[in-house]
Amino acid sequence: MTLRPPTVQWLADDGAAYRQPGPSARQHGFLDIIDQTKLPKELVRLQLCNPDDIYDAIKRLAVRGAPAIGCAAALGLAAVAQRLQASSPPDFIQQVRQIADYLASSRPTAVNLEWALNRCLGKLTAGSIPDLQQALLDEALAILQEDIAMCEAIGRHGMTLLRPGMGVLTHCNAGALATGGCGTALAPIYAAQAAGCDVHVFSDETRPLLQGARLTAWELSVSGVKVTTICDSMAAQVMREKRVDIVIVGADRVAANGDAANKIGTYQLAIAARYHRIPFYVAMPYSTIDRNLSTGDSIPIEQRSPDEIDHCPGVQVYNPAFDVTPHDLITGYITERGILAQP
Amino acid sequence: MTLRPPTVQWLADDGAAYRQPGPSARQHGFLDIIDQTKLPKELVRLQLCNPDDIYDAIKRLAVRGAPAIGCAAALGLAAVAQRLQASSPPDFIQQVRQIADYLASSRPTAVNLEWALNRCLGKLTAGSIPDLQQALLDEALAILQEDIAMCEAIGRHGMTLLRPGMGVLTHCNAGALATGGCGTALAPIYAAQAAGCDVHVFSDETRPLLQGARLTAWELSVSGVKVTTICDSMAAQVMREKRVDIVIVGADRVAANGDAANKIGTYQLAIAARYHRIPFYVAMPYSTIDRNLSTGDSIPIEQRSPDEIDHCPGVQVYNPAFDVTPHDLITGYITERGILAQP
Repeated sequence: MTLRPPTVQWLADDGAAYRQPGPSARQHGFLDIIDQTKLPKELVRLQLCNPDDIYDAIKRLAVRGAPAIGCAAALGLAAVAQRLQASSPPDFIQQVRQIADYLASSRPTAVNLEWALNRCLGKLTAGSIPDLQQALLDEALAILQEDIAMCEAIGRHGMTLLRPGMGVLTHCNAGALATGGCGTALAPIYAAQAAGCDVHVFSDETRPLLQGARLTAWELSVSGVKVTTICDSMAAQVMREKRVDIVIVGADRVAANGDAANKIGTYQLAIAARYHRIPFYVAMPYSTIDRNLSTGDSIPIEQRSPDEIDHCPGVQVYNPAFDVTPHDLITGYITERGILAQP
Repeated sequence: MTLRPPTVQWLADDGAAYRQPGPSARQHGFLDIIDQTKLPKELVRLQLCNPDDIYDAIKRLAVRGAPAIGCAAALGLAAVAQRLQASSPPDFIQQVRQIADYLASSRPTAVNLEWALNRCLGKLTAGSIPDLQQALLDEALAILQEDIAMCEAIGRHGMTLLRPGMGVLTHCNAGALATGGCGTALAPIYAAQAAGCDVHVFSDETRPLLQGARLTAWELSVSGVKVTTICDSMAAQVMREKRVDIVIVGADRVAANGDAANKIGTYQLAIAARYHRIPFYVAMPYSTIDRNLSTGDSIPIEQRSPDEIDHCPGVQVYNPAFDVTPHDLITGYITERGILAQP
């Protein structure tokens, strides 16, 4: 149905690629990802197997989007674990735990990163070192497989909100490039397209790193979906012109009360949608809900380098990577379990 | 008080620069402007005297900001007129009118452009060709001088809204670089600074052409005002953090009911300010009010080239240069006549 290449996969030493566990996938290999910093100009893939490279790929956004980061970290941990020199299973487990802690620190806001790594660590119970290595790879591939199924389910539920010819506004990239599957915010659009329901997507360019202009526009256009790139500051104007019927964005972390952390600019978009009485949906895997956080006030907000924003020498720059949209601005949550009014 | 160079001036053939009419300014010369497309990397000045170059400088935003465009067009018309070959005063007048029409078409939204050119044309009554040439230069310099005084008056009125330590958010550049004087939206900040009242300015970078990051941050920092550059999408977040006490923006055209056309993104900012109950002021010369327009709905919105916005090949781009903020989102209008609740 689409020419989109896979965002995250396991590349075995014999060159075969895998996206689900099973006997044939039980091979020595690498985490294999698209280097998203090179899109849309070049489609470059990276094969990674050491902790610094994986940390760096997550940190510099070569792989980004909460679900894709989770899949990549899990497969990355499996690739690192296959190459560890350990004196005993307990020594192996201790080393793997340290590496998982290190990888988890690469992006503090993404709850899926910690969640996926903890799931893998949970498989480190008993057995030989090869058994434990195998368990890590199987669990990582299971996470990827579940992610693909999760995206499909989000698409199935979310497409019920769409009608032919609708205008859909989205921010940043919560698409196939942000997940192991077909995306979260974009999944309903792909599902609708597959069912013959074509919509028109307005994609915020998403400063400072332009994930919307570079990634969302790219993946939608290679998939044959009509897409118009706008500057972030134009969203309210496009709404005023009645060209937007629904806003769908992703989320990096959702608090128990529904407050949602997502790419900086999401909050401003939610305010504009409310002003124009346009429904505003957050699409995300159910695992994005962090029940340890009662509200969004305690979600840590990553501050990124001033160098990401062009500025005059000597001028200060403020560069938060995320903002938190309060739950009362959110119409609903599109998850693999259905569309929820509240988490 | 400041090291800012003049944005627009008359440069006589003997190298002397003038910003007001008078016997010594009555010299053959050029329109002299900063090429703002080169800032902040280089400070380049342009000396212009032919219609295509002046049209082009306005069109490609080498000079921009409604008041500065008006001053530049008037001085530009005077420079062109000094070099015209005409057989008689009526022939001269007809040629000048054609050139004024041509210059007026360079930026359709800026009412000051047409206003300044019409003021100059109004001086073409009777007399010899040298008399008419002199009248055009005197009127252009009078417009520039009035613009300088207008900015000072806006600053004087607007500074009454400011207190030491306040956070002021602005969008695009409505500063010294946008006028013949010290600016419109930034004039209150400069006036407050001169009176010992320092504020902290948050400057939206202002996509797609980054006038905020390049121009506002540059002119504030060379003037010693504390300024932080943010992406346009971060404004609501900075408001939520209670770091903004007031928003002041400029305007390119204001309708009789107070609806204000300004740089794209202003409308979205006004919605965010309303949501956070932050006062939102438009600072502009009184001449920006277009009484021929009852509401903002009939203000023509310039659509600019898709190439201004990075986009994937084959992806559509929507690039309106302006939006219209409805009057009910505007707290007041800071003009040279005082702060008005309504135009």
